[in-house]
Amino acid sequence: MYEYSRLVHYYETDKMGVVHHSNYARWLEEARTFYFNDTDLAYVETESYGVFCPLTDMSLKFKYFARYGDRFTIRLKMSKYTGVRFRVYYTAVNQDGKVLFEGETGHAFVNANHKPVSLSRAIPHRHELMKNLAVDE
Amino acid sequence: MYEYSRLVHYYETDKMGVVHHSNYARWLEEARTFYFNDTDLAYVETESYGVFCPLTDMSLKFKYFARYGDRFTIRLKMSKYTGVRFRVYYTAVNQDGKVLFEGETGHAFVNANHKPVSLSRAIPHRHELMKNLAVDE
Amino acid sequence: MYEYSRLVHYYETDKMGVVHHSNYARWLEEARTFYFNDTDLAYVETESYGVFCPLTDMSLKFKYFARYGDRFTIRLKMSKYTGVRFRVYYTAVNQDGKVLFEGETGHAFVNANHKPVSLSRAIPHRHELMKNLAVDE
Amino acid sequence: MYEYSRLVHYYETDKMGVVHHSNYARWLEEARTFYFNDTDLAYVETESYGVFCPLTDMSLKFKYFARYGDRFTIRLKMSKYTGVRFRVYYTAVNQDGKVLFEGETGHAFVNANHKPVSLSRAIPHRHELMKNLAVDE
Repeated sequence: MYEYSRLVHYYETDKMGVVHHSNYARWLEEARTFYFNDTDLAYVETESYGVFCPLTDMSLKFKYFARYGDRFTIRLKMSKYTGVRFRVYYTAVNQDGKVLFEGETGHAFVNANHKPVSLSRAIPHRHELMKNLAVDE
Repeated sequence: MYEYSRLVHYYETDKMGVVHHSNYARWLEEARTFYFNDTDLAYVETESYGVFCPLTDMSLKFKYFARYGDRFTIRLKMSKYTGVRFRVYYTAVNQDGKVLFEGETGHAFVNANHKPVSLSRAIPHRHELMKNLAVDE
Repeated sequence: MYEYSRLVHYYETDKMGVVHHSNYARWLEEARTFYFNDTDLAYVETESYGVFCPLTDMSLKFKYFARYGDRFTIRLKMSKYTGVRFRVYYTAVNQDGKVLFEGETGHAFVNANHKPVSLSRAIPHRHELMKNLAVDE
Repeated sequence: MYEYSRLVHYYETDKMGVVHHSNYARWLEEARTFYFNDTDLAYVETESYGVFCPLTDMSLKFKYFARYGDRFTIRLKMSKYTGVRFRVYYTAVNQDGKVLFEGETGHAFVNANHKPVSLSRAIPHRHELMKNLAVDE
């Protein structure tokens, strides 16, 4: 279980006094970036191979408001890797262990023309790393 | 079926050359704001009664990339209104009628302390409007 | 004097209950997009010629808070066009005519490698339009 | 000279392939938050005294594009503290020491009604800290 953590930014709050939910998609992306950086799968390099990895879907369940001053931690695991697609599951908690939200995202590898590509053909050594990282449930 | 439409902003794109998915939560919020403004349920007034309406959940399925230069239209309907909660369903299309994404959001009325409130007690005339607007499926 | 106007979005507010200042750079960009769209200089087409137009500098003086429920209007004029650079001056007011902020941005034309380009050579007919639009002070 | 550093986020880039300039106002705010956290002047506590600290003005000069994969560092110093107002000066560099942008922001202390307040009366011990931190040029 990988963990990514940082303080909430002021500009992420809205007039309700809590973090605006649109930022959660960004927190998940930050968590994925650090996760892949830390597992030799840095996304900045994926794109240098001409391979992109957009989202296919995202769902979030909001549990508790995040506030300025909070430090959130996102726990993430990657699963269901098929060579072309994979899914990531997330739980975000605050500094008191309170669950802020739960979420999942689906991803697909595509080329510069946005056509699906198999990672095993496009970047074989990354395919091996992905296979090993993906958690079977 | 209510429709909200505008041009994509440059600052909504990312280095893939398409709209970053985190903006879609914002487009849905814009669509809801205009929908409620146009049905005598302006959210700016809801908050003036001390009633807030945060999201309980959100899910999105991404179908086609949106680009700078595109004009998107979001079709929305409100449903499953219970007096405390409701759901909104969305389809976003571009100027060629191509579906960009589909989504749904759940909402709950809460007071300034973030406790659930019944709209029928808090703002009775708005409760009647909501009941009439909500589409039964 | 060109005018661009729209409602403030909820997601643009912060926990002070007012619009977060980082959004003003985005409002200015929206105003420029509509201004250039309306004067046959659509930026989406500029980029299709391989010409980009990043900012060289920006300065803003904040006068009055903008709030959710407000409709802002940005008045803009383009000036000091040299063929490679130009400046834009802005005044943003709310629905009561109260000045929200004043600002100016500097811009330069560059190619895909981020090297300066002369618009008169790169897209001659746009150069003529820019020359005629730029207001000499 | 205080330093704040982090990686560029993907969602901060735009279709030019570089960081969108509107994010720089957010980077400066992050840098200020960490600076004040680290000097016993955490802004989350300032607001708990009913004192707020909005910007009065901001100016930025853009020097070099920031990219996904870059790690930026913002060097900041606080100056010209009057008890009611102060200014902050910033230089942002990338991992190669290349200057990305320079900027300055003006700030004023206000109460919940947005009226100017003197920090020496509102929170005297913070006034002393601010006086000692401010760099006279």
